[in-house]
Parts: sequence; structure tokens; C-alpha cells
Amino acid sequence: MSSPVIAAAERAREAGHGLALATRATKDDALGRMAGALRADVDRILAANAVDVARAEADGTPANIVDRLRLTPDRVEGMARGLEEVAGLPDPVGEVVRGSTLANGLEMRQLRVPFGVVGMIYEARPNVTADAAGICLKSGNAVLLRGSSSARSSNTAIVEALRGAVGAAGVDPDVVQLVPGDSHDSVKELMRARGYVDVLIPRGGAGLIRSVVEESTVPVIETGVGNCHVYVDRAADLDKALAIVLNSKTQRTSVCNAAESLLVHTDVAEAFLPTVVTALQEAGVTVHGDAAFQAYDGVVPATDDDWGTEYLSLDISAAVVPDLEAAVRHVRRWSSQHTEAIVTEDLGAARRFTAAVDSAAVLVNASTRFTDGGEFGFGAEIGISTQKLHARGPMGLLEMTSTKYVVTGDGHVR
Amino acid sequence: MSSPVIAAAERAREAGHGLALATRATKDDALGRMAGALRADVDRILAANAVDVARAEADGTPANIVDRLRLTPDRVEGMARGLEEVAGLPDPVGEVVRGSTLANGLEMRQLRVPFGVVGMIYEARPNVTADAAGICLKSGNAVLLRGSSSARSSNTAIVEALRGAVGAAGVDPDVVQLVPGDSHDSVKELMRARGYVDVLIPRGGAGLIRSVVEESTVPVIETGVGNCHVYVDRAADLDKALAIVLNSKTQRTSVCNAAESLLVHTDVAEAFLPTVVTALQEAGVTVHGDAAFQAYDGVVPATDDDWGTEYLSLDISAAVVPDLEAAVRHVRRWSSQHTEAIVTEDLGAARRFTAAVDSAAVLVNASTRFTDGGEFGFGAEIGISTQKLHARGPMGLLEMTSTKYVVTGDGHVR
Repeated sequence: MSSPVIAAAERAREAGHGLALATRATKDDALGRMAGALRADVDRILAANAVDVARAEADGTPANIVDRLRLTPDRVEGMARGLEEVAGLPDPVGEVVRGSTLANGLEMRQLRVPFGVVGMIYEARPNVTADAAGICLKSGNAVLLRGSSSARSSNTAIVEALRGAVGAAGVDPDVVQLVPGDSHDSVKELMRARGYVDVLIPRGGAGLIRSVVEESTVPVIETGVGNCHVYVDRAADLDKALAIVLNSKTQRTSVCNAAESLLVHTDVAEAFLPTVVTALQEAGVTVHGDAAFQAYDGVVPATDDDWGTEYLSLDISAAVVPDLEAAVRHVRRWSSQHTEAIVTEDLGAARRFTAAVDSAAVLVNASTRFTDGGEFGFGAEIGISTQKLHARGPMGLLEMTSTKYVVTGDGHVR
Repeated sequence: MSSPVIAAAERAREAGHGLALATRATKDDALGRMAGALRADVDRILAANAVDVARAEADGTPANIVDRLRLTPDRVEGMARGLEEVAGLPDPVGEVVRGSTLANGLEMRQLRVPFGVVGMIYEARPNVTADAAGICLKSGNAVLLRGSSSARSSNTAIVEALRGAVGAAGVDPDVVQLVPGDSHDSVKELMRARGYVDVLIPRGGAGLIRSVVEESTVPVIETGVGNCHVYVDRAADLDKALAIVLNSKTQRTSVCNAAESLLVHTDVAEAFLPTVVTALQEAGVTVHGDAAFQAYDGVVPATDDDWGTEYLSLDISAAVVPDLEAAVRHVRRWSSQHTEAIVTEDLGAARRFTAAVDSAAVLVNASTRFTDGGEFGFGAEIGISTQKLHARGPMGLLEMTSTKYVVTGDGHVR
């Protein structure tokens, strides 16, 4: 196996050996310099971005995608600040996860170590380039960045700035590389580079993630799709319920932790449905309801497709359920196992719901929007895992590490 | 997608919902009954096993494979005792991995939860059937067992006994199922059952593991291949070194934590090589050496193939290295990243080797044979992971869990 992608991965592996052993002081120095380099190179980065934006507009790219692609002085400053924040976080590498002295006197420690080489496959958000580089560097990992080809010019300028800063800190710049090649073939090679790349993290839409999961032989951490539910229990405080439903649905609609579906216990339907339907509609939300919800003006009928849809828009599916168990069954059937919330004052209901619902995060009397690395206090987030292997939920620096056992004896044999 | 395999996985999912919420008391009761059922059914199990053994012998299966397949009253008793030992281990489910009260008053806890449905693909060792069923049950997971078709009759008898016991404990017996169908197609379906099966664990030879890793869309934990090295440093105590080399190579040759390669610092080569070569040869080991080792009688020349080979036999590759860094480079080049050992009295050398070598376990002055769930005090082991995602090294009950965030508020919104 030999190709520019594999060659880049081999350089990353070699450079990563040094980075894995770098002290926190060295890594934080590099992160500070990376932030400085983005600020110093802001004009060059914006000029490169303008090329990408102009091409995207000429190609008729939808305005919301162009908006994600577009950089501004503020957004570049935000990327720099993000790197400085990562510098302020504790170093996960070397943390002792567990340790004991075995019966025979062997001293066993399990330590956090970097993965080695991380591959990131993502869409047209150039800020991910700096975020991912910073999180990977702090966790001691070399990173191969494969952003959208529509952001190629922006990403090239950003990575050039970052690599210069990394080198100035005495770290091999090959710990931060763009995947060479612009075609889909280079993505394919990255996905088949088992043994060269330790883990792949796709970030983007459902289609991107599905294709990486299907095609990759490199271990993948699946991120992102969130068909999140709010269940309003019979014992809910309906004022809290209204605030939580509105916040979960409308505070930001395009994100994976926004609510997409509302379930209401039949005992509170009569009291809650008129209020919540009106409030949602006043906030511009289209309610796709079951028969009970359709009794209210403006509610459109929900189909099975609605129950399974992550709208990412001002739409919500809504149903009345006969009891908590029916809510649990509905969630098991339709949820993407990202985040669900229950609103209740009943401890037993809260216990049953949080135990029975098998999602990365289950919230009690709180908005689904709280499932977030920043909100959880992780300080930086590389994505939200919706798989159960390795990492589940918001992934911070700890989730970017593996472990190693170091066992010390004095001539021990079995 | 519909097939007997998917239908079995759906039954496992449903049954697993109940098992995930079962108390430790219920699970331990089930494990005790499973042990009892194996003892009660020993004659039926041995008769079923005799059918498999007779067919394997008639097919001309190699004697060592037939030996793995063969059950005896002692081996069945060992399986029963293994289940009782698992009952004695702490329940990993519900353990709080981390938790804090966030700045806004939200109470966040990260809890261990079962994966849900685990698929095991393994070769002709019927004892794995009982071991895997016990570990999965204790960790709250439903399991789909796909052993070798050559052990079909044995596995059917074992699973029948186990399911009866599970049911008698009030747990849905579908938490323990054989994968229906005997053909390779059923393995393929299991590997493509993403969304139905949460994790696949292949146990067996390198070929089996490679094919699962290549073909599976279900997340896989890779186990097993161990090309393990012992490095004898310049500052080694040569008596300890001799004992560790012999134990690592010869205590049991067919296992993944046996040593396959010996590296000796040039400064101690003259003192150590005659002794170690003679001792290895007296133990029946063929030494495949580099030029320095070939100076000794009976040493055969090593090729690049030897450096990369997991012999699993009375063979060892052996080379003299100019310094510790060369030993690290050799290990990086050829190791399967399972286990490596350094023999040294020099703290600096031990620190450098354990930091620079990127393997699941790095041992100082101890035999490679200690990389083992039992030796590490995990009490039960489902395999030894050689990948970096999720679990690395010996996998016990903790490694058979995922996590879930439970976050409790009082009407919190963003």
C-alpha cells in the first residue's frame, strides 16, 4: 500500500511519536503560537476563504452552506481563542486511570496515552480545521485533516499558519497535515488506511457519517445525528415543561441536540397541548402531530417519517402517549440515541425514564440543548458520539486518548 | 433487513432491555443457576461434544484443533466454576465514572451502562460459549454467540443448559442465543447488522480477526495477535533476564502473550548470548537469529518474515541492537502492539522504554505472560484488545460497558 495519503499517514505516525512524549509545557506553547499565527495571518486566511466563498456562490451553493464556509475577522479570532482555551485545559496524557499492586508484588498502572494518528473527515466549516488541530495536539495525537474540497483554499491557509507555529514550538509540523488530494479517492484511502490511522472521526451530515461508517476499515467514532425527544410526564410542572420544550426546539434549530419530537402524557394533554401548540407556533414552529395534536389549529398530520426525522429546522413531531412506558417505547423505536429529556416532579418517573432510555444523555427537567462539551465543562469538544464504543456523548480531550498498561516487577515470572 | 440473524438480534435487544435493568442479585442468581445447569447437564453436553469430535476427526482435523474442541468432565466443571467466579465480581453497571454539579446547578453523572447486544465470533473452543455468556450476562448485555460450525453440537447443548438456567432466574432467555444458521452467510449477516448489534468481538486466529475487521460495519473490538518482544537492556540483571526470556517464550507457547522475539543490547551480548541461546535450545526452542546470534551453534538465520511472525510455537527471533533507541525502533517496526518487556535495573531506561513503546502493555522486569485479565486481577477476561479504541489490553467486565450521561435540573434552559 503506497500513496500520498499513506505517505502522509506515515509522516504523521513518525511525528506523533515525538508529540506523544511532549510535555504539557511544550504543547501549550505550541497552542499559544498557533493562536498567534492565526491572528498574524488573518488577512491571508480571509483572502483564501474569499476564493472558496466566491467559487461556492458561483456554483449555486445554498446560502446556509456558504454561511458555514465564510470566515470573518471575528470567526478567525474565535478560532484563535479556542486554541488558547485548549491550552488552558489539563493534559489528559499520562493520567493514571487505575492502578494497583498485584498479589505477587507487580505494580500495575493504566495510563492515558494518545491514539497516535487521528483522521478527521468533515464538511465545509473551516473553523473545524483549527479546533481539531488544537484538540488533537493537546491530546498528543497527530491529525490528518480532510475537510470539504469546497473549503480547500481556506483550510490550506489555516494549516500553513498552524504548521509554522507548531514548528516554532519545536514540534514536528507533520503532526498537523491536510490529507493530500482533493478527490473522493483520497477520502477512500483514508478510510482504508487501517494500521496507518488509529481512529477516524467524521463530522457532518448523516450521509457523510453513514458512508464513513460503511466503508471504513479504520475504527470510527460516529458522531452527530440527533433525533432528540422531550417527554412531558403526568407529574410535570407545566411551566417548566413549556420553557424546556421551547428552548430545546427553538434556541438553535440546526444543531444535533435540538429537540425534534415532543411526547405528552395523556393526563396532562388537555392542560398542556393548547399552550404548547400556541407557543411553538408563535415561535414559528410547525407542529407535526398525531390525532390528539391535530385537534389544534395549524397542526399538520405526522407520518412515520416524521417520528424518525431529525428536522434541524422549525419543525417538531408531537404525540400524546398513554403512560411513561409508552413514551419509553416510542423513544426506543425512533430515537437516534443522542439525547432525551423528561419533565417531571415524580422521582420514580425520573428514575424509570433515565434507566430505561438508552441514549448518550438523558436529562431530567432540563433542555436537550445542554448535551454539549462546553456545557458539560469539558472545555473543548471534537463532536458528540452517538455510538457506544469508546466514547458516548460529548467528546473532549479525555475521549481523544487510549490507554496503556505499564507493569513493573523485579524479575517476575509465571 | 430481515433474516433469522436479524430476528435473533431483535429478540436479543428486547430481552437486553430487561437485563440492563436487572439487579446484581438477579444476575448473580442467574450465573449460579447457569453453573448448576452445566453440572446437571454434563452427560448431555459431553455426548453432544463427542459428535463434534468424531466429525472433526473423520474430517482429518489437526490434533491440536481437536484438542481445543474436546470437552471433558473437568473442562465442563471449569466452565461452571468460571461462571461462579463471574458471579463473585462487582457489577460494573451503574458505576459512576464521573460526576459534578455544573456552574448552573445541573447535576451531571456519567454512569456505566451495558452496550445492549454483543456479538461474539469465535473458533472451536466450546468453553468460550459459557465464558462469554457469563461475562455478557454480568455486564447486562445480551449476547449472540457464533462459534465454529465444527462445535455446533457442543455449543447447542451448552446454550440450551444456560438458557434454561437464565429463564429459571426470571431473566428472558433470549439474552443468550446461538446465531441461527451454520453457513458463512450467518456470520456475514452478523457483521452487517449495524443498529441491531452494538459491538462485535472476534476471538480466534489472525485470519478470522482480519476478516471481521475488514467486513464488519458493526463496531469491532479487535483481539489477539501478539508478536511480543523482550528487550534485554545494557543495565539488565542477566539472571532476571534469562528467567524472563525463558518464561515469556516457553511457559505456554500457543498464547498471544508469549514472547516471539528477543532483543539484546550489544554491551551485554557477549555475556548473555551464549547463556540464553543454550537455555532456549535446551528448552526445545529454535532460535532464528541475526548475524550476531548466528555465531552460536544451532541458530538459524532470521529473515524479515521472522521479525513479523507470531510463531505460537517453540521458535523465537533474536537480534542484537546497538542501543535502547534501536530496540524501540525495532519494536515500532515489527510489534503487533500487544505486549513488550524490558529487563533493566536502570530507571531512565525503564522510563524511556515504557514511554516510547506504543503497546497495550509494557512490562519492566517481568514476563510478557503477565498481560492477562486473571493476572491483572480483573477476575474474568473476554479477550485482549490490540486496538486503541474503547478497550486496550485485557478486557474484563468494565470493558464490556458503555456509559450514559444522566443530567438533572429544575427547569434549566439555555
